[in-house]
Amino acid sequence: MESNATLSHKNRPFLTWQLIIDWAEEHYRSRIFNKDERIPTRPGLLYLVQKGFIRLAGSTYTVPGKKKSKPKPVETDPEEQTFLGFVGAGQPFELAQTSPFTLQAYAYCEETTVLWMYWQDLDNWPHFRREVLDAFRYQHQRKLLWLSVLGQRRTIDRLYGSIALLAEEFGEPCQWGEKLEQRGDRLPWLLTHAQIGIAIGATRVTVTRMMGQLRQQGLIHVLDDNSICLPIKLTSN
Amino acid sequence: MESNATLSHKNRPFLTWQLIIDWAEEHYRSRIFNKDERIPTRPGLLYLVQKGFIRLAGSTYTVPGKKKSKPKPVETDPEEQTFLGFVGAGQPFELAQTSPFTLQAYAYCEETTVLWMYWQDLDNWPHFRREVLDAFRYQHQRKLLWLSVLGQRRTIDRLYGSIALLAEEFGEPCQWGEKLEQRGDRLPWLLTHAQIGIAIGATRVTVTRMMGQLRQQGLIHVLDDNSICLPIKLTSN
Repeated sequence: MESNATLSHKNRPFLTWQLIIDWAEEHYRSRIFNKDERIPTRPGLLYLVQKGFIRLAGSTYTVPGKKKSKPKPVETDPEEQTFLGFVGAGQPFELAQTSPFTLQAYAYCEETTVLWMYWQDLDNWPHFRREVLDAFRYQHQRKLLWLSVLGQRRTIDRLYGSIALLAEEFGEPCQWGEKLEQRGDRLPWLLTHAQIGIAIGATRVTVTRMMGQLRQQGLIHVLDDNSICLPIKLTSN
Repeated sequence: MESNATLSHKNRPFLTWQLIIDWAEEHYRSRIFNKDERIPTRPGLLYLVQKGFIRLAGSTYTVPGKKKSKPKPVETDPEEQTFLGFVGAGQPFELAQTSPFTLQAYAYCEETTVLWMYWQDLDNWPHFRREVLDAFRYQHQRKLLWLSVLGQRRTIDRLYGSIALLAEEFGEPCQWGEKLEQRGDRLPWLLTHAQIGIAIGATRVTVTRMMGQLRQQGLIHVLDDNSICLPIKLTSN
């Protein structure tokens, strides 16, 4: 449990958070983004989500076909980008540029607010620097789990695993009935079946069918507002 | 380029590395593993690869079938594990336990040597602590790129992207002819087509066919000892 306590972002409110927000506003290092707007990032800078959610996406090199075809160095169509995860309020992110692979960040909600700074700015706040680095350590563990889920061969395992991971990290407590088992963790955003499909490498149709199967098996619950909920597991312990 | 310099492990020799090795041996926190031997890890501990390579693998929850079947909580068959990456000499790793998902580490070469310590042990070496955290920051960026590659729809893009990422991170300079373009970065271990298949979600047969295609297109080169090499890209610049 020690590591969970250390790594969970939920136990990690940034102590000097208000100080940082004030500093960023004072130095014009704060900006509000609309939903789906791209955050213009530069390698070497550190970004912090003050409010809302960031969606990370990746574009990679496409091997040209055997027959002579137009070279397609980098996919820029948003539909062709891969989903790499969300970053929530209080969390840092950074995007190192490594050709031929590129990473991008997009606002996932209206009024998503992002601060940025140079790494050396953190020298003023050594404790905060340590929190940021611990947050990356946590995110790294989450990415290992995410890779683990996406490496599963069966689509339904990838689907259930992705929902479970997102609920574990971002879920908000919810309840849809009186019974003890009618409680769980609800994803704080709506995800379309097409979006889920892109994330787990499946078609929208397949996602819809398998979401039905997971509901039938009681492994997920969909609330009236269509948000996805992972029911709490009741153990005999 | 700033971030590449900061993040590349190649520019990051551990200054106090010999000190740490001595400390670990003195405190019986060092052990040598055979190839494919599992490293017994505990959450909350920090591990450092002194020599050789570690392979990280993940096991996840399997959704039971619609028909009544035996529940399969966690896959333990190595063939069913997903490949999460390598950790080389000088690099740290840690594995937080998060049910129902588990992460494991295995020695990838003979005589792989691993040290371990508690995070608080690092309080004695604040500079080293910072290097370890920066190393996780770097690994996190690599995992984002890896996710980006694995999220590609076409198998050949996943195959080429994986090889390019591994060569970029672990490649050793090699040469197989006199010409300028007959140089490149060679993967330091042999990978079977079956292993590559598990990593990128393809069958062995598909990997073999597509490796042939990449060779024909000059995107990869296979050396006499069967190691895979990414040829240097000659630009007009």
